[in-house]
Amino acid sequence: MWKAENDLQAIETRIAELTQSHADLPSDAVIAEPLRDIAAHVRDQAVTSSEGGKRLRALLALAAFDAANGKDDQRSSMLDVACAIEVFQTAALVHDDIIDDADLRRGKPSAHRALESATHSTTIGNGLGLMLGDILATASIDIVVDASRHLQHADALIDAFLTMQREVEIGQVLDLGVETADLNDPQALADASLNVFRWKTASYTTIAPLMLGMSAAGIDPKEARNHALTIGEPLGLAFQLADDLLDVTASSEHTGKPRGGDIREGKRTVLLADSLAQCSSHEREELVTMFTASTRSSNDVNRAIELFETSGGITQSRERISTLWNQARTAIETLPLPATSREHLTGVAMRFVPENLR
Amino acid sequence: MWKAENDLQAIETRIAELTQSHADLPSDAVIAEPLRDIAAHVRDQAVTSSEGGKRLRALLALAAFDAANGKDDQRSSMLDVACAIEVFQTAALVHDDIIDDADLRRGKPSAHRALESATHSTTIGNGLGLMLGDILATASIDIVVDASRHLQHADALIDAFLTMQREVEIGQVLDLGVETADLNDPQALADASLNVFRWKTASYTTIAPLMLGMSAAGIDPKEARNHALTIGEPLGLAFQLADDLLDVTASSEHTGKPRGGDIREGKRTVLLADSLAQCSSHEREELVTMFTASTRSSNDVNRAIELFETSGGITQSRERISTLWNQARTAIETLPLPATSREHLTGVAMRFVPENLR
Repeated sequence: MWKAENDLQAIETRIAELTQSHADLPSDAVIAEPLRDIAAHVRDQAVTSSEGGKRLRALLALAAFDAANGKDDQRSSMLDVACAIEVFQTAALVHDDIIDDADLRRGKPSAHRALESATHSTTIGNGLGLMLGDILATASIDIVVDASRHLQHADALIDAFLTMQREVEIGQVLDLGVETADLNDPQALADASLNVFRWKTASYTTIAPLMLGMSAAGIDPKEARNHALTIGEPLGLAFQLADDLLDVTASSEHTGKPRGGDIREGKRTVLLADSLAQCSSHEREELVTMFTASTRSSNDVNRAIELFETSGGITQSRERISTLWNQARTAIETLPLPATSREHLTGVAMRFVPENLR
Repeated sequence: MWKAENDLQAIETRIAELTQSHADLPSDAVIAEPLRDIAAHVRDQAVTSSEGGKRLRALLALAAFDAANGKDDQRSSMLDVACAIEVFQTAALVHDDIIDDADLRRGKPSAHRALESATHSTTIGNGLGLMLGDILATASIDIVVDASRHLQHADALIDAFLTMQREVEIGQVLDLGVETADLNDPQALADASLNVFRWKTASYTTIAPLMLGMSAAGIDPKEARNHALTIGEPLGLAFQLADDLLDVTASSEHTGKPRGGDIREGKRTVLLADSLAQCSSHEREELVTMFTASTRSSNDVNRAIELFETSGGITQSRERISTLWNQARTAIETLPLPATSREHLTGVAMRFVPENLR
C-alpha cells in the first residue's frame, strides 16, 4: 500500500512542475523582450499561488485509485489527474480572492495583490490576477486531457473533470446568492447554505476526487459516480462544516487565520443559521443587526461567538458533522472492495474531519 | 457549396441553445428556492452576452471544414465546434470588460454591469460577472469535447482548442504589459503590439478556426496547423489593424462606438507607434504627454487623430493591412485544394478586412 507521506512529496513536486510549464510562454513563441517580464511575473505567481495547500483532494483521488486496484504503471498518470484537481482549486481561489478583495491567502499576499505590488498598479494587478485564474483553469483541463489518455475510461475522466468545474462555478454563483438571503428565516438559510456546500465544496473536494480515482482504476464510470456521491456528499459537507466551526473555535495559531474571520466578513453559514434558529428573539435581533451591518468590530465577533455557543448552534454543528461523517464512513464500508482497500480509503477520508468532531 | 447567410442563422440559433443549456443548473440538481433566482440571472445574462457578434470566427471554421471537404453528416458537429469558439470569445470579453471596467459591450450593458443592476450590488455584480466568464469558458470546452467525438482527429481538436484558450490568456497578459511600454521607443512599441495581436487576436480569430475546421475535415493536424498559421497569422493581424484603424477613421454610426474610443482609453496601438515614429519631435512630445496622462479630453482625441493623419501613421497602417491581406490571400491560393474550395475560403476571409483596406 502507498504511503500518504510519500504521495504528499510527489504531489508537491509535480504541481510545481506542471504549473511552471503550463503558465509559461510556449517555448517556440516569439515574444518582444519588454513583454517577457510581465509574462514571467504571472508564471512565477502561478507557482507561488499553487504552494501551501494541504493536498487533501489529491490524496483522496490517489487513495480511491489505489482502493479500486488501479494499475501500478498508470499511477503516474493518476498523480497528474490528482494534481490537476489542486491546480483547479488554485484557479478558483485566485478568482475567489478577487471577488472578496482578499489581501491574504495561505498566509501570503493573494495573487492579485502580489501582482499589484509587482507591477505598481492596482488595475494591472487585478487584470493579471483574473488572467492567472483563467490560465490555471485552462491548465488543469489540459493536464487531465493529457493524463487521461494513459488511464481507463479516458472520455469519462474528461467529462467528470469538466462537470466538476461547472459545479464549482455554479456553486460560487449560489454562494453569492446566499449573501442576500433572509436572516429571519433560519431554516431556509441553513438549507441554502448546505446546498451551496454541495456545489461549491463537495463537488471538487470529495466527489470528483473519488469519481476520478475509481474510474481511472477501471470501475464503470456510472458506478464510480454513484459511489463518489454516496461517500463524497456527506464527507464534503462534514469537511466544510468543520472548517466553518474551526473558524470560531480554534486558535489562530492552529488555523493561520484570525479567530472569527468568517463572522467579521459577515459570512452566512450553517452555524449562523443554527444559532439564529435556537437563540432568544432578543438575541436573534442582535445577530441580525450585526450581520446586516456593513462591518463588524472585534466586540461584535466575540459577542457572536458567545451567542453561537450559548444558543446551542455550535453543539448542533458538532452533531451535524458527526452524523455526516458516520454516513460517509458507512458508505465506504459498504463498497464492494476488499477490507484493506476500504480501510485505506477510510484512513485518507479521516483527514477531512478533525478527530474530535467525527 | 454552403451559403454563409444560412450558416449565420444556424450559428445564432445554436449558440443560444448551447449557452442556455450549459449555463443553466443541472436538471437533476436540488437547489433551494431563493438561490434559483440568482442562478437564473446568470443563465439569462449568459444568453444575452452571447448575442450580437458578427460570427466571423464560426464562419471561418465552417468555411475551412467545407474547403477541406468535410463530411456532410459531420457538419452539425462542426457547427458546434464553430459555436464553441464564439462562446469562448464571449467568455473572454466578459472578463475583459471587468478588467477594463467597461460599461458597454455590443451596444448593451456589459455583463458585470447588467448583473450589478439585477442584484443591486456592485460587489455581487462583479463577482457574478467573473463567474459568468468562467462558466462560459468551461462550457466552450465541454461543447468541443462532446462534438469532437463525432469528428475526425478528436484528440487534436481538443488539444487545439485548449492551445487557443491558453494563447488568448497569455495574449491578455502581454496586452497588460504593453500598457507599461516606453512611448519613446516607437519601434519597440510597434513590435510589442504586433506580438500581442498574434496571441490575443489571431490565435482565436483566424488560426484556431482554420486549424479546427481543416483537422475536423480529416487533414492531418500538423499540416492543418501549418496551413492555419500561414494564412491565419497575417489575416488575424490585418483584422486587428483594420479594427484599430476604423476606430479613428470610421463614423460612430458605422462602428457603434464613439470615434477615437481607443485614443480616449489611452490604448497603445501600432497606429500610435507608427505615428510617433514619423511625426516631428515636437509633435511626438505632444502625443507622449497626451498618452501618459490619466485621461484624454475630446480635444485631445481630435488632435491625436489629426497627428495620426498628418504624420503618415494612418497611411502606414493602410500599407501594413494591405501587405498582410495579400500574404493571407496568397497563402490560401497555394493550398493543396481544388480551386473552388480555395475561392470559397477566400470569400469568407475577405469578411475580416474591409474592401477599401485590402
